[in-house]
Amino acid sequence: MDYQPRPDDVLSLLHGVLGAPAQLQALPPFAEGDADLHAQVLEEAGKFVAEVIAPLNREGDERGCRFEAGRVTTPPGFADAYHAFWQAGWPGLSAAPDDGGQGLPAVLEAVLYEWLAAANHGFTMAPGLLHGAYECLRHHGSDALKARYLPKIATGEWLATMCLTEAHAGSDLGRVRTKAVPQADGSVRLEGSKIFISGGEHDLTDNIVHLVLCRLPDAPAGPKGLSLVLAPKVLEDGTRNAVHCERIEEKMGLHGSPTCVMRFDGATGWLVGAPGQGLAAMFVMMNSARLHVALQGIGLLDAAWQKARAYADERRQMTAPPAAGVAGAAPQGGLGRLGRPGAASGPGAAVPDASLIAEHPAIARILDTQRAWIDGARLIAYRTGLQLDLARHHPDAKARAAAQQWCGYVTPVLKAACTQQAFEGASACLQVFGGHGYVREWGIEQIVRDARVTMIYEGTNEIQAIDLLVRKVLPDAGAGFARTLLALRDELDASRDSDADAQRRFAQLRYLTTQLAMAAQAAPRLPYEVADDYLRIVMLAMLAWAWCRIEAAPGATASQAASAAAFRRWVLPEFEMRAGIVKKACEAVIAPVAG
Amino acid sequence: MDYQPRPDDVLSLLHGVLGAPAQLQALPPFAEGDADLHAQVLEEAGKFVAEVIAPLNREGDERGCRFEAGRVTTPPGFADAYHAFWQAGWPGLSAAPDDGGQGLPAVLEAVLYEWLAAANHGFTMAPGLLHGAYECLRHHGSDALKARYLPKIATGEWLATMCLTEAHAGSDLGRVRTKAVPQADGSVRLEGSKIFISGGEHDLTDNIVHLVLCRLPDAPAGPKGLSLVLAPKVLEDGTRNAVHCERIEEKMGLHGSPTCVMRFDGATGWLVGAPGQGLAAMFVMMNSARLHVALQGIGLLDAAWQKARAYADERRQMTAPPAAGVAGAAPQGGLGRLGRPGAASGPGAAVPDASLIAEHPAIARILDTQRAWIDGARLIAYRTGLQLDLARHHPDAKARAAAQQWCGYVTPVLKAACTQQAFEGASACLQVFGGHGYVREWGIEQIVRDARVTMIYEGTNEIQAIDLLVRKVLPDAGAGFARTLLALRDELDASRDSDADAQRRFAQLRYLTTQLAMAAQAAPRLPYEVADDYLRIVMLAMLAWAWCRIEAAPGATASQAASAAAFRRWVLPEFEMRAGIVKKACEAVIAPVAG
Repeated sequence: MDYQPRPDDVLSLLHGVLGAPAQLQALPPFAEGDADLHAQVLEEAGKFVAEVIAPLNREGDERGCRFEAGRVTTPPGFADAYHAFWQAGWPGLSAAPDDGGQGLPAVLEAVLYEWLAAANHGFTMAPGLLHGAYECLRHHGSDALKARYLPKIATGEWLATMCLTEAHAGSDLGRVRTKAVPQADGSVRLEGSKIFISGGEHDLTDNIVHLVLCRLPDAPAGPKGLSLVLAPKVLEDGTRNAVHCERIEEKMGLHGSPTCVMRFDGATGWLVGAPGQGLAAMFVMMNSARLHVALQGIGLLDAAWQKARAYADERRQMTAPPAAGVAGAAPQGGLGRLGRPGAASGPGAAVPDASLIAEHPAIARILDTQRAWIDGARLIAYRTGLQLDLARHHPDAKARAAAQQWCGYVTPVLKAACTQQAFEGASACLQVFGGHGYVREWGIEQIVRDARVTMIYEGTNEIQAIDLLVRKVLPDAGAGFARTLLALRDELDASRDSDADAQRRFAQLRYLTTQLAMAAQAAPRLPYEVADDYLRIVMLAMLAWAWCRIEAAPGATASQAASAAAFRRWVLPEFEMRAGIVKKACEAVIAPVAG
Repeated sequence: MDYQPRPDDVLSLLHGVLGAPAQLQALPPFAEGDADLHAQVLEEAGKFVAEVIAPLNREGDERGCRFEAGRVTTPPGFADAYHAFWQAGWPGLSAAPDDGGQGLPAVLEAVLYEWLAAANHGFTMAPGLLHGAYECLRHHGSDALKARYLPKIATGEWLATMCLTEAHAGSDLGRVRTKAVPQADGSVRLEGSKIFISGGEHDLTDNIVHLVLCRLPDAPAGPKGLSLVLAPKVLEDGTRNAVHCERIEEKMGLHGSPTCVMRFDGATGWLVGAPGQGLAAMFVMMNSARLHVALQGIGLLDAAWQKARAYADERRQMTAPPAAGVAGAAPQGGLGRLGRPGAASGPGAAVPDASLIAEHPAIARILDTQRAWIDGARLIAYRTGLQLDLARHHPDAKARAAAQQWCGYVTPVLKAACTQQAFEGASACLQVFGGHGYVREWGIEQIVRDARVTMIYEGTNEIQAIDLLVRKVLPDAGAGFARTLLALRDELDASRDSDADAQRRFAQLRYLTTQLAMAAQAAPRLPYEVADDYLRIVMLAMLAWAWCRIEAAPGATASQAASAAAFRRWVLPEFEMRAGIVKKACEAVIAPVAG
């Protein structure tokens, strides 16, 4: 079963709950757009994803990418699919019309990439880096460089890479060693090796534009000495640049995307931005890139859920216990291989019809819980997508700053929490299949393997947690973050129990933040120890907010009510557990108890 | 890095904490064995596993098993390794000397299989089923059948399978359809198809003995109609029996073990046990088989930990924040790619030396937490292995019954909790490697893929939870289970804080059990909904007991103290969370609150 995008589900959140059309129309570039236009774009995107991209997923995993003599062949159908994707204008969905883009809101592009990842994570890696490269070049490139490269990247005629990691410099980019030596003509010559380069080489486009983090001669050590250089695979005169793919990695999953070791052997390139401003140039795109990874997580979880839901609604095993309120004896089934002879129905009695496994409580709990994660996380992610649009285009500087602040706080939370849930939730969905989940045939194990990488790339989840707590929340003792939470609190209706509960959680989070800020003075390691717990607490509080908003929206459905109930029964209790861990850690420092 | 068994670690638990030698010497068959003998056996086992089995693991994954025209070729080296394993007498470690076995305690065999799985899960599947087949045949086979097959199985000269699952009968074995038609000579003819048969066909031994769950003509429907039949691959006269391997599955992992679809095409076989007693015959071996799966989980987690520990002690990235008590400014590092330019050390300043990643709090937490799981779970598992020996060999019937009861309650808990931790903990260890964890080179991703199956086979983890709560604990409202917990409580020393805390948890568990027994009367679905939570609560309470015991043992080390602290800080809080979920679910039924 291939992934099926469901535009109505997305629109009920984007329009029904968040009121996106009105918010977007307040932004000059989107003044003309309306709800119908968005619906139409998503309808078309859904069709394209379902018809062209999703069917290539399994072969993309099984055949994978091939490497031979420096050339990479992508899986069957990928090149044609990318050509169609480009021709239909999808790569440039949110790029400026001046550059050849469609000029649509970033939030719609976010939905497109959620669906693409759900349908075919490997394929999605190719265009997935375009948007970041576009923003980076647009903001920091010279006019000459922009004239040559920006339209090709905006439209996706050429694909792009981000060449950051080196063998000894993973999370620690300050140690990057690749050298850029300035030439008389204003270009630089690049020398060095990069690893883990997604799409470093492939057969999808005529040219590939590499953005390379490197160091000019005499640059200071550490992150301040880093510069960014653009180096294309093919130079303007048609000659091949000295950029070589040395090999591709054998990976756990994501076989549809070539992960390349790249060697720059005196390759010609040009600085993007000022010398020593390499990281700053990259930061332009960090929030949107991380939001896209969060949406990959949501998409992959939805893909796993769709498969498990369909299987649970078809497969029959054992008799499920009766629903609450159904009178009668204890259930006979539900034990399966555990039911000893003797324990079954009387001699000669017919075996009762097996139930759909969806009716078994353990299976229902898995499915309801994952659904609760998917739609709750979607609401937060789509809101963040909207904030990206607001941060770029709102006429009021204060509104832009507030939106930017939202993105700064919420993006690492979404990146870490949604990718962790993608992996763990996909594994829970695999469990629904029993033994069949472990074999390739059903495609569910591929999702688990593919999802695992999202917890690592674009900054590991541990780095996200440190970014949130240590770099963003604690420096002003949580004052800025409190303002963001306050805005959410004010959207709730305290006369409803669940809303009041969510409000209490924001207050508790505020208190914990203050405690942490105090404890960190005495014990600088402590915030690093509990950063993951803190991030989870933030995500769970926001999910609580999300489910209140979804339930309160006009037209909320019975299935949404079931998801909200599952969230509160099975997911939300983690909040208290994590809060307890943080509280105890702080108390041990602030008021040490005598042994 | 291949897995390295560490006999001293195991002996410190088995002898130092559990006092196994004295307990075993009280059992007639082991009266002669002493601590030195055990140490010697484990020393030899560790060497064999490290030198012969572990080095084949990676190629076992990469090359996997090949299927061609009904024949299965195992990965390079597997056949020679199995031959050496058999010749050294390891398959018969706990089998009776009369049958050609070594007559050693089951608990030593449990340790051997933990190490085998850690070193090479795929290989371990082949001999892993021998012990169950041996017990099954020994207890239920006719003398004629035993004479022909028992010694070959006891010594491992021939391997065995359990043929249970059919395409439509997974957890629900009552629906098995394979037919056994009695013949004039006392044999039966088997007709039917089985799936997910580990080692159904291979090149490791001259013969393969299949134990097949099937149905005699006119047998009643459901589990009472099931019989067990032995059908060898090669008949006594040397002719090939009509047992065919149709294909092997493509799986997420466990590539070293062929998972076969088997067709019985009028194959000759013989009943094992009475007609209709097929499940009963299988139940003989259920506790030991499930304990072995739990130990696979522990072993795989230890293998993942060894890899992550070694990597964390070698790889350097960023500067770790100073340890508690170290005065000075906030740490400069620890942010890595998040450190904006400008945020680093002053212009021209040297970049400080990077720390070992083991010094980073998030990494240390992962490593300490997994170590706490491994050794805590080991203690419970080894104790359960000892109880298996007691249940078989104790001269006092009451002691045998108590040991049997322990195994009944604790085995499903270990099976589910240790396999879940194997998968999740191995994934946490993968995270230690960053991007390198996702590529095959380091071998950590193989462990995650291999471990995933242990949550499914030998009864899914959801089935284990239902077995524990619905079938075993609730029928007598928890009275029998309370006796088992009481025995553990009495081993603790209430004058120590952590022991008193563990005792309180047993009391809380007792209370929750009573609540659940009441709630189940009104809401028969409820125990099925919270069975997983209940099982986790039991495991966490037992881990709390385990860490008190380990800490209190003479010679407890500093690293054990660190594990105990990690367990209490990061793992144990889940107890309250799960208890809260169960309590709330019960209260909703027992004393419904007006809306």
